[in-house]
Amino acid sequence: MYLYGGIEASGTRFACAVAEQPDEIIEKASFPTTMPQETLMRSIEFFERFPLKALGIASFGPLDVNPSSPTYGYIMETPKPGWARTDLLGTLRRALNVPLALDTDANAAALAEYFYGAGRGADSLVYLTVGTGINCGVFVRGQFINHPEVGHMFIRRHPKDKFPGHCPYHADCLEGMASGPALNGRWGTQDQLAREHSALEIEAYYLAQAVSTIRYLLAPKLVILGGGVMHWAQQALPVIRQEVLKLFNGYISNLRTLEAVERFVILPALGDNAGICGALELGMRSFWSTSNYGY
Amino acid sequence: MYLYGGIEASGTRFACAVAEQPDEIIEKASFPTTMPQETLMRSIEFFERFPLKALGIASFGPLDVNPSSPTYGYIMETPKPGWARTDLLGTLRRALNVPLALDTDANAAALAEYFYGAGRGADSLVYLTVGTGINCGVFVRGQFINHPEVGHMFIRRHPKDKFPGHCPYHADCLEGMASGPALNGRWGTQDQLAREHSALEIEAYYLAQAVSTIRYLLAPKLVILGGGVMHWAQQALPVIRQEVLKLFNGYISNLRTLEAVERFVILPALGDNAGICGALELGMRSFWSTSNYGY
Repeated sequence: MYLYGGIEASGTRFACAVAEQPDEIIEKASFPTTMPQETLMRSIEFFERFPLKALGIASFGPLDVNPSSPTYGYIMETPKPGWARTDLLGTLRRALNVPLALDTDANAAALAEYFYGAGRGADSLVYLTVGTGINCGVFVRGQFINHPEVGHMFIRRHPKDKFPGHCPYHADCLEGMASGPALNGRWGTQDQLAREHSALEIEAYYLAQAVSTIRYLLAPKLVILGGGVMHWAQQALPVIRQEVLKLFNGYISNLRTLEAVERFVILPALGDNAGICGALELGMRSFWSTSNYGY
Repeated sequence: MYLYGGIEASGTRFACAVAEQPDEIIEKASFPTTMPQETLMRSIEFFERFPLKALGIASFGPLDVNPSSPTYGYIMETPKPGWARTDLLGTLRRALNVPLALDTDANAAALAEYFYGAGRGADSLVYLTVGTGINCGVFVRGQFINHPEVGHMFIRRHPKDKFPGHCPYHADCLEGMASGPALNGRWGTQDQLAREHSALEIEAYYLAQAVSTIRYLLAPKLVILGGGVMHWAQQALPVIRQEVLKLFNGYISNLRTLEAVERFVILPALGDNAGICGALELGMRSFWSTSNYGY
């Protein structure tokens, strides 16, 4: 068997793992995302201990994922101090000298759930991450749809919600109203939110709109809700599903019952491991395709 | 050369055409959509005069486009008198005995624009039809995305608009607010609408939201606006483009200028011929693939 490496890079932590199969991790390390040089050096030191065949990277963004771009593999204009225009892929490639593949954290999680998690047997799924940003990975008939920017779609404002929205471009788009920073801006803390019924109701109203628009435009078999904000999912999920049922209002013929919606809107089967599992899958695929990563 | 047939079936007219190349029609006939038996008989009589190799059908809906469904090729629950559960494909197949292919009018138009119209050279496009309903055809990297139901996405209501919406499922979804019947319900006639500045402003506000959500979720290179309502496009198009520019507000890096938006949101290069050209292309492809039509 061959060893593959995977990095799940978020704005708060880097997780590094080594595996023979993406869903069976052999060794793992995790450390805070400090400045790029330090964080990448710790990642490199971890991987240098293994005879890796390839490395996959699932990263926060904005990420340049266009292989023909001069800044391919860079983290672009991020507000995270020190990280704007960091050459993530190049730095790791020069240090480790193995085939590398990189994609967004949402696409990597979608890939992992498709092959190892809730998506097995489904021919299409959308993985929606609700965290610092709101992003999605879309896997349809064995292919990704290019990096949809679902976070900036317009949503209808909840009548009880007076929060102006925090998106610097659009104020009250989906991300501006329903991301982690929006929740913090509106309610102070997410703990508070978990106790406030109207918080759940408002958040569910926005996420249900996202789910319904995703269903209308992309028609996936499943929508998987992941990301940090979904950690209070046990409480929010039933409200989101009720709201989705209400929004469709019978229009989608196979989503007319709560049971059907419960099968359609789900949590990640891989839990918090979807990202790192997807990174390992990306790594394995980049080895298969030698140096050119493609589905 | 071989002869192919194409039918563009709308709720008001059937257009039938014969061609060797989808974009060069040899003979064409068109008649009102009366009751199914009469309308299909006129279509069959037209095509029986030619030694067709195959027939493509671009039809209004709701259409069952699932080849493994027992009602594949049927027009399903339509309010159009007499047409609910009409076996469109089967009736034509039994009479003409040639390979047949069928798709929605929006997908056929998208296909035609992709190969013969504004989409040549683009690797992806969305064709949005704004008429009795609002539908879209999505062609990305040589493949259709399955029949998105863009018409029922939620949109943000224009502050000046008091119209309750006419969608029987959702009242004020996109179709409920911006389709032909919605315009007629709100303004009486489309002539009136063309003279009313606020009508243009309101319609543009809704269509711009559809365009921006389509860009966020599907990331096409082009959005083509077709359909009956777009016949007042000369007046509406500049307003829609301005609104799209305003909605993105600089977020999409290659859509930061009006010039860029003018290249992104366009009218069909094939004009009203996109549907019939797409039907002929469907027919030609069903001949190529003998009896099994697939992209």
